[in-house]
Amino acid sequence: MTKIVIDTKGGDKGASAVIKGASMALDAFDQLSVMLVGNGEEIRTACESLVMPMNRVEILDAPDEITNYDNPAEAVFRKTNSSMIRALMALSERDDLFGMISSGNTGALLTGAMRHLSKKERIRPALAAVLPSQGGGFTCLVDTGATIDCTPPMLHHFAKLGTAFMAQTYGLENPRVGLLSNGAESSKGNKLVKETHVLLAEDNSINFVGNVEGNTALGGCCDVLVCDGFAGNQVLKVTEGTATRIITDIMKYAHKTQSEEIKRLAGYLMGIYDIGSLGGGVILGVDKPVIKTRGNAGESAVVNTAHMLLNMSQNKSVYGQNTYSI
Amino acid sequence: MTKIVIDTKGGDKGASAVIKGASMALDAFDQLSVMLVGNGEEIRTACESLVMPMNRVEILDAPDEITNYDNPAEAVFRKTNSSMIRALMALSERDDLFGMISSGNTGALLTGAMRHLSKKERIRPALAAVLPSQGGGFTCLVDTGATIDCTPPMLHHFAKLGTAFMAQTYGLENPRVGLLSNGAESSKGNKLVKETHVLLAEDNSINFVGNVEGNTALGGCCDVLVCDGFAGNQVLKVTEGTATRIITDIMKYAHKTQSEEIKRLAGYLMGIYDIGSLGGGVILGVDKPVIKTRGNAGESAVVNTAHMLLNMSQNKSVYGQNTYSI
Repeated sequence: MTKIVIDTKGGDKGASAVIKGASMALDAFDQLSVMLVGNGEEIRTACESLVMPMNRVEILDAPDEITNYDNPAEAVFRKTNSSMIRALMALSERDDLFGMISSGNTGALLTGAMRHLSKKERIRPALAAVLPSQGGGFTCLVDTGATIDCTPPMLHHFAKLGTAFMAQTYGLENPRVGLLSNGAESSKGNKLVKETHVLLAEDNSINFVGNVEGNTALGGCCDVLVCDGFAGNQVLKVTEGTATRIITDIMKYAHKTQSEEIKRLAGYLMGIYDIGSLGGGVILGVDKPVIKTRGNAGESAVVNTAHMLLNMSQNKSVYGQNTYSI
Repeated sequence: MTKIVIDTKGGDKGASAVIKGASMALDAFDQLSVMLVGNGEEIRTACESLVMPMNRVEILDAPDEITNYDNPAEAVFRKTNSSMIRALMALSERDDLFGMISSGNTGALLTGAMRHLSKKERIRPALAAVLPSQGGGFTCLVDTGATIDCTPPMLHHFAKLGTAFMAQTYGLENPRVGLLSNGAESSKGNKLVKETHVLLAEDNSINFVGNVEGNTALGGCCDVLVCDGFAGNQVLKVTEGTATRIITDIMKYAHKTQSEEIKRLAGYLMGIYDIGSLGGGVILGVDKPVIKTRGNAGESAVVNTAHMLLNMSQNKSVYGQNTYSI
């Protein structure tokens, strides 16, 4: 049995969508149990109406909420009775809890995770996205928005975090690290990328494969793609925007032609490219896995991220050793 | 009749592909005539074998070539007998030449255009891409790679160049300017974006609509999207990579299902999303339109960019007035 903590507050769609997602996840995965954190009464009522298996549900009452308007650093220290911070504290204190899901304030989640789940030296954590790459594998994009203005040593650090994560979660022997740039040649890049290129090339502990351009970012040429949080956010969102647009075009075409074949195709593509529900950002560099789902994430995001944590727990020893918190 | 200059050298596919493209463009557009610049003998032989209408073809012999290995600034001053520089000089000197197409060294083309086609104060030109946006309009993405490391005043300048270009080429009355960021709120962005946001918000000559995220970059919410050349390169290439990948998936699906309907759909989507052949980058901030096609551009890129120049020439008075060289 793998028990995960779910912060029910902070998402755009309210606690009810998160609890519904938790219920769906419990139905889908026998080996899952959950701790739901938030307004106790609201959670209890929802659990009853959804007829959830209460032997696999624990409720932690934490009535306060960190919103997107809160200053992250302040909120982490002040709103100690918020669902997010109480969830992080429980995760830190209890050995039976494996990981956590939250769709709340990203900055607060990062700061909170750093405060409560980083027993070793305080390092700058990163927010990674694990995306399906062409050809069947996965690419870990790091950073996707935790640190917007980066220095070369930060990107170097992200490369190490991503390497450790992909080695341990996906069992890759020597993950290939690419550096996002505007050209494949080592001379290409902005100042940050050029300086980072030198650091990565010099580090023998990393399998650095050089610069990677945006059109091949998810083409399967690397397992870890390193960039600053601003650029990573663009890669993630432009990919999503383009996919959504093309699928919308296909839906219109299907509607016009009334082709069942094309409707089936659209459904197939939506399953692959619905990045919003695909999973979430994984905070790298802390003691236990914390997954940030998008603010507008719906029920399916909870199911998918719960599934991701379940998969990770099969490599639990790795997380227990905390080796990916470099 | 609109006469354009075509640099036949510098592309990955050689002069023959460019000349073939010119031949196809002449077939497609009655109102077009061309000056082909490069190895005179090679051009003449190709023209003969393609049976081109020689009353609409002028050949300028410039045997030298600027390659991608040349240092742009040096090449512009040293390789004055190269096809690119001779083409730029002809464009600058002769009133009957409307614009130019080249797939050569981007840096040299920018530097050369600035030197030969910027009679007013020397300003930093930008490389814009005009992309079809969702809903039927166009978005001018500026910069896409001319200046990789930018300052806030540069981005402010790009906003003005893009505004003037979209007003004059597409007849938009008050083009909406967006600023690419990692969040819609004005507080979001890296240091560069935050500082630029203030400059754009203060400038009443610009119709600034605020920050735009990557997933809505080409969603039609702005006519001009401003960003540094590194980020713009990502938007362009990630869009292309995602589209190519999805279309490849659809082709495989079509092959598997042997559905004619889906093969037709794939063809339709390729027509829309083949960014490589869509057109090229437009150099903004110089006296006459210069279009940079991709290094690996094929025949269709020449046809499409010739078409773009023809469209522009319908607003020729505007270019003649040089008002978009702000």
